[in-house]
Amino acid sequence: MRDPLTPNPSAGPPLAAWTDRIERSALEEMLVETARPEVLSLALGLPTAELFPREAMGRAVAELIAHDPRALQYGPPRDDLRRFVVELMRERGVECRIEQVFLTAGAQQGMSLLARLLLEPGASVLLEEQCYTGFQQVLAPHAARIVPVGSDPSSGIDLAQLEARLGAADLPALLYTMSDGSNPTGASLPLAARPRLVELARKHQIPILEDDAYGLLSYDGTRIPALRAFDPDWVIYLGSFSKTLAPALRTGWVIVPERFTAALGSLKESSDINTATLGQRAIARFVAEGGFHPHLAKLRAAYRERRDALLDALSTHLPEGATWTTPRAGFFVWVALPGEIDTVALLRRALREEHVAFVPGGAFAVPGAQPARSALRLNFSFSPPAVLREAVSRLARAIAREGRA
Amino acid sequence: MRDPLTPNPSAGPPLAAWTDRIERSALEEMLVETARPEVLSLALGLPTAELFPREAMGRAVAELIAHDPRALQYGPPRDDLRRFVVELMRERGVECRIEQVFLTAGAQQGMSLLARLLLEPGASVLLEEQCYTGFQQVLAPHAARIVPVGSDPSSGIDLAQLEARLGAADLPALLYTMSDGSNPTGASLPLAARPRLVELARKHQIPILEDDAYGLLSYDGTRIPALRAFDPDWVIYLGSFSKTLAPALRTGWVIVPERFTAALGSLKESSDINTATLGQRAIARFVAEGGFHPHLAKLRAAYRERRDALLDALSTHLPEGATWTTPRAGFFVWVALPGEIDTVALLRRALREEHVAFVPGGAFAVPGAQPARSALRLNFSFSPPAVLREAVSRLARAIAREGRA
Repeated sequence: MRDPLTPNPSAGPPLAAWTDRIERSALEEMLVETARPEVLSLALGLPTAELFPREAMGRAVAELIAHDPRALQYGPPRDDLRRFVVELMRERGVECRIEQVFLTAGAQQGMSLLARLLLEPGASVLLEEQCYTGFQQVLAPHAARIVPVGSDPSSGIDLAQLEARLGAADLPALLYTMSDGSNPTGASLPLAARPRLVELARKHQIPILEDDAYGLLSYDGTRIPALRAFDPDWVIYLGSFSKTLAPALRTGWVIVPERFTAALGSLKESSDINTATLGQRAIARFVAEGGFHPHLAKLRAAYRERRDALLDALSTHLPEGATWTTPRAGFFVWVALPGEIDTVALLRRALREEHVAFVPGGAFAVPGAQPARSALRLNFSFSPPAVLREAVSRLARAIAREGRA
Repeated sequence: MRDPLTPNPSAGPPLAAWTDRIERSALEEMLVETARPEVLSLALGLPTAELFPREAMGRAVAELIAHDPRALQYGPPRDDLRRFVVELMRERGVECRIEQVFLTAGAQQGMSLLARLLLEPGASVLLEEQCYTGFQQVLAPHAARIVPVGSDPSSGIDLAQLEARLGAADLPALLYTMSDGSNPTGASLPLAARPRLVELARKHQIPILEDDAYGLLSYDGTRIPALRAFDPDWVIYLGSFSKTLAPALRTGWVIVPERFTAALGSLKESSDINTATLGQRAIARFVAEGGFHPHLAKLRAAYRERRDALLDALSTHLPEGATWTTPRAGFFVWVALPGEIDTVALLRRALREEHVAFVPGGAFAVPGAQPARSALRLNFSFSPPAVLREAVSRLARAIAREGRA
């Protein structure tokens, strides 16, 4: 019998997704060192605090609390916010009804609740080779069997390989993917590939969890509909206000078939009580005042400028043989260095000698996939253009030395 | 093979804890009818919105957002708030270190995460016969085997019966209990019984989940230490600001052995990202300004007045043979009517003929326990004294008629 006061091992060891694949010292170094004030960090995936709608949010919360005695009470999720989500989804090409909109504590809670609803212990799950570590962490307690699928930093999931995987006998319980501005690669799935992906899901009866945390932050003026736009039955959509408004509001949503909402409501209730939070109420007020779209336009312009500054600096400073793509959405650029460079060793050198940080590509590899040892993820949302340029020139010096080492 | 787009049945059907034991029509009637404006409701367990520290909270949030660009950013749970919890715990007789304080989205999230850490599928769990339905809902996805233990509305869990249950071969994985102002019965475990209870837990190596949502709301001026004060190893403590400040802030905490915090952090991260929320930040600011204790004193005085008004009205109006206790803490009074009265039928009559609502005792029975069919739970926190008195006089008329029916 196990020690009754020891946490259940199936809940997963902390940082499991990382420590398995990067030696611990480098990881700890990075986590601690990147926070030092002299370090220019392209490591984390934070939105920039300068662009939070602070004044409007502060005013919204203050007025709300001053004028409505129930603003701080238990109460059901807000229908006005759910209605706004229905509108907002049209910009992603998605038609849905308010009954299908389920508010969550960020997209992270959406994926956690849906995994609990959809996965039986030991279920198989299809993931791209490089995958958001937060979803890998969601899977840990489910003892899921990961089935990796190839992925390209410019065009996303490899449909031919996916089709081959789906031909196998053991059908996975779901496919998780970010089709727009993927974390970590920045990839967006081309428009032409979208109907093909959802047809595969429908044909093989595999629900797709579409994590669209970055879909509204697109920078090329084109509108590519979310996967959910192509199939309302087999695509479950995860959205978030963390990147477009602010993370500390902890507000996201899922778009689910209506038969999910009762079970989802019960699970949410048991998880943290399904009640409107202060964050939800503040957002409802902000969007009611028409604040959302002007703010989104401002974000798109600012993040596009940062992306372009980063790409420009990469062209200027990176050595021959390095490749990267131009992400049309999201927060990240994925850089592949010539194969002899190990980016965990590079990170150590970059921190020590140049005070610059990034995340080594291997950190995102799913179990069973080949870690991208000479790749790295660079974030462009957090730092202003001048910092991005300086950071890349430092990084290039570290690469030059590491390449000779 | 089950339909891959059907929610996993082990996640538990919505409202399972209720619908199993009250016929659905009565339940639905209650849920809908109690919300009608003409109904005086002693049914729900809400704190009163009039007493929320609205002005101070509104000011705290507005200043915070105005002066700190990181107020809306991702960031670790706040150490200042954790330090305040350490201080606050001393009022419950509990000595702990900041490293043992883990912030959660209300006590509900604490119990949900701890259940996921401690329970293997099919584990046995000890519950009092009448138990908070929110914890029963937490257990549903774990397919837990409930072992009921007798409980008294004045003195709480029956230790002799607990000891007998612990003598059985199949040792439960945990015991969940509210030792102060229990929901639903209002019971508080006597001081003398507390060391005995934790000794039993230690002897049999059963962790106790102590849900102390109401412990700070005590009305008799005495200080009875929480169970956690008697054993730092075998008692895991759940606290909440939902009842002492406001529910929509969604902030609670658990006090756990330090070896839990890494696993708990990982599970919280996968559930909703372990980041300081707007609610946490607002509370940190409010308590830093010294706002908490004057507010708590005000709440205790107001809720004591409401409790006394309810008890006085019960003495005045209820028929001979009805019994109830004087809760020293919490939000609820448990009333036992003479045995021939079925309180589900009484609720139907009370709503239809008198526009007054309560929750029938049977709603709280755990699987395997005898439902308390002639008991009812009355809430006194939500309504002012005059409403409580009017509600009880209406209830008494309904009881008189139901008794003759």
